[in-house]
Amino acid sequence: MPQDQNSKQEVHGRLLSVAGHVNGIVRMLEEDEYCIDIIHQVQAVQAALDKVNVMLLDDHMQHCVSDAMRSQDSSEQDRVLNELHDVFGARAKI
Amino acid sequence: MPQDQNSKQEVHGRLLSVAGHVNGIVRMLEEDEYCIDIIHQVQAVQAALDKVNVMLLDDHMQHCVSDAMRSQDSSEQDRVLNELHDVFGARAKI
Amino acid sequence: MPQDQNSKQEVHGRLLSVAGHVNGIVRMLEEDEYCIDIIHQVQAVQAALDKVNVMLLDDHMQHCVSDAMRSQDSSEQDRVLNELHDVFGARAKI
Amino acid sequence: MPQDQNSKQEVHGRLLSVAGHVNGIVRMLEEDEYCIDIIHQVQAVQAALDKVNVMLLDDHMQHCVSDAMRSQDSSEQDRVLNELHDVFGARAKI
Repeated sequence: MPQDQNSKQEVHGRLLSVAGHVNGIVRMLEEDEYCIDIIHQVQAVQAALDKVNVMLLDDHMQHCVSDAMRSQDSSEQDRVLNELHDVFGARAKI
Repeated sequence: MPQDQNSKQEVHGRLLSVAGHVNGIVRMLEEDEYCIDIIHQVQAVQAALDKVNVMLLDDHMQHCVSDAMRSQDSSEQDRVLNELHDVFGARAKI
Repeated sequence: MPQDQNSKQEVHGRLLSVAGHVNGIVRMLEEDEYCIDIIHQVQAVQAALDKVNVMLLDDHMQHCVSDAMRSQDSSEQDRVLNELHDVFGARAKI
Repeated sequence: MPQDQNSKQEVHGRLLSVAGHVNGIVRMLEEDEYCIDIIHQVQAVQAALDKVNVMLLDDHMQHCVSDAMRSQDSSEQDRVLNELHDVFGARAKI
């Protein structure tokens, strides 16, 4: 979870907005709107989720990663670095 | 809208599943789950939306684009090709 | 190949520039420059290649796809639509 | 630069291979090969560069980021976290 309450609040608001946006896209489909218009809305949701991920990651780095790095616990340090690797790797889809 | 009823049904089901997934992510945030776990779920939603977009685009190409290309209406042909350009361009974020 | 000679010329110039850019990144690595600076250059190359792909696709749609759609050859039409599907699918990495 | 000599060697080899690949794409264009085949090769180069970036980032996190986090220098710590933010942000293109 975001350690910073402002970040958490903002991520929460953005996710609720994404949820509403997806429901709107479901309705566009039900009302047989034009495919290209639907695709543009899906792309907008994906961009919003990119932004959410960057915010979550910022908070994570400023708290969990920082704490692990400052600790003397090298297995904890390896763990957080491996997690960051996985997050990057998933985006690269390597 | 997808012209093919099976496609439309499948896209509809996938979008409802994405909506449920996003609500689940909101709850993860509210329950202060670990940031990295939340990020992985957001990435899964983005992959699901990639798949939705490819399905929408397939249907669009097999119907609207095909019809426009077979028509004698060159301004309609330009219109559909420009739309495809925009969809690609948005993904490339050029 | 791009059917339009101006497009072909421009794509050619951009690809030569990408090749030079990649050689520059190799030198940055050999000269032990800072990782983050190298990563930013790799990201710039990827953005340049996104642009190249959109240009290639535009030309392809305006010529090969248009021709196939206007032909009476339905297997040729299927072929070009399947190819577009694969190009989109590869970008979505579905 | 990658601190780890094996990583540096491997990244170097991959970048040389990308450079060769790009030159091959230039030749495909000059020899008027089919657009879709060229696009697939460009996509392969982009995937190879994704992999290079993940490797560079791994090495960077295991050395520069770790060192900064373990130091007592909070401005240095902020600097490396801001850099990681920018790298993620560029990929999200927010």
